[in-house]
Amino acid sequence: MTRSPTLGSERMRMRMAELSAESGVPVATVKYYLREGLLPAGERTSPNQARYSQAHLRRLKLVKALTEVGGMSLASAKAVLSAVDDDEVTPHEVMGVVQEELGGIPPTVSEEAADQAFAVLDEICRRNGWGELPRDHVIVANVVAALATAGELGHDELAVRLEEYAHLALRVAELDLETVRGLSSVDRIIETGVVVTVLGDRVFAALRHMGQALISRDVLRERP
Amino acid sequence: MTRSPTLGSERMRMRMAELSAESGVPVATVKYYLREGLLPAGERTSPNQARYSQAHLRRLKLVKALTEVGGMSLASAKAVLSAVDDDEVTPHEVMGVVQEELGGIPPTVSEEAADQAFAVLDEICRRNGWGELPRDHVIVANVVAALATAGELGHDELAVRLEEYAHLALRVAELDLETVRGLSSVDRIIETGVVVTVLGDRVFAALRHMGQALISRDVLRERP
Repeated sequence: MTRSPTLGSERMRMRMAELSAESGVPVATVKYYLREGLLPAGERTSPNQARYSQAHLRRLKLVKALTEVGGMSLASAKAVLSAVDDDEVTPHEVMGVVQEELGGIPPTVSEEAADQAFAVLDEICRRNGWGELPRDHVIVANVVAALATAGELGHDELAVRLEEYAHLALRVAELDLETVRGLSSVDRIIETGVVVTVLGDRVFAALRHMGQALISRDVLRERP
Repeated sequence: MTRSPTLGSERMRMRMAELSAESGVPVATVKYYLREGLLPAGERTSPNQARYSQAHLRRLKLVKALTEVGGMSLASAKAVLSAVDDDEVTPHEVMGVVQEELGGIPPTVSEEAADQAFAVLDEICRRNGWGELPRDHVIVANVVAALATAGELGHDELAVRLEEYAHLALRVAELDLETVRGLSSVDRIIETGVVVTVLGDRVFAALRHMGQALISRDVLRERP
């Protein structure tokens, strides 16, 4: 079942050329998205012509945001949008799909380093009452792989400060979720969740780098 | 000038096959890194044989960490490692290179949306005494592009909460920089900074997703 009736019912006014101009996405790319199912078909007006609605334009901008700004592959964007469109997938589950696609395939690390890293993370979750950790989940596997990689390089700084990082991350997540609290439309909740998570990761990483630059000016500038 | 005399002076014991086995990097990939200058040449023992040191092994693990876990392109990893090796580049400047390479090429957005987004960020920096913002810097451009993209989609949630996000990001950056405070060797400061920044981005994003999953269970699960 599809959650976006507006994609079909809204008045179709735009030609392909307008859709392309308005979204900033080249015609060839729009056609590719149509073929790949990232964008639903328009309403045919002749064998070689179709018209598109504002909903198509919004969807096109969303694909652009996920891929060009969020850094997602087209396959990942498609997986996310399929979940968004499927009204049997709950908002919580849509967020799960977004996180899985953002997580990608966790890199392989040595078993020993991974075991150590998992133990550190697991202990923190227990101590804070954050529940049982599903070790094979992509998010958990990503934390573990990054910590294990640092460990194999002889760097335990991230592991040592992991609990402090986790507390700050939880506060960021609270801010993220505040954006959807109080929204009444399920469509809006889902889209907001997707936008805030995908673009939010990019924003936060850049803000962190700004912060590092600000502080490292004082901490690092005067070093030999 | 090169900052890593150990790469040459340490005793060379390992053959290529051992270097590959110890690092988990296939021989063909090691050879490619040698050709591309990501890994310095070993000590020739015959026209077709060379020996490598522990320093080579460490460097190989670092390349793997930057690319496979940190998601950097080989070209970016090379730029970072060149800065690491150049003793005329200060630690603060090396961090700048890392951030630039992680930032990539900011996506293009409409001028109007970008102006609005920049104004929001600039006002926050002024209010908090974080100094003048270089608008064309890649970090700033990344924040602006992500905010502007959200704005074009009709989502101002990130912009509205940007100051709260920025304060949390600054606290994360403080944690990052604490890892290098107190280190006495410049080499160690630089390597720690690189590792903590590149792997730290990955760790923090995953921790944030864990936090979102934890909270969204309650906020989103019961929605229709």
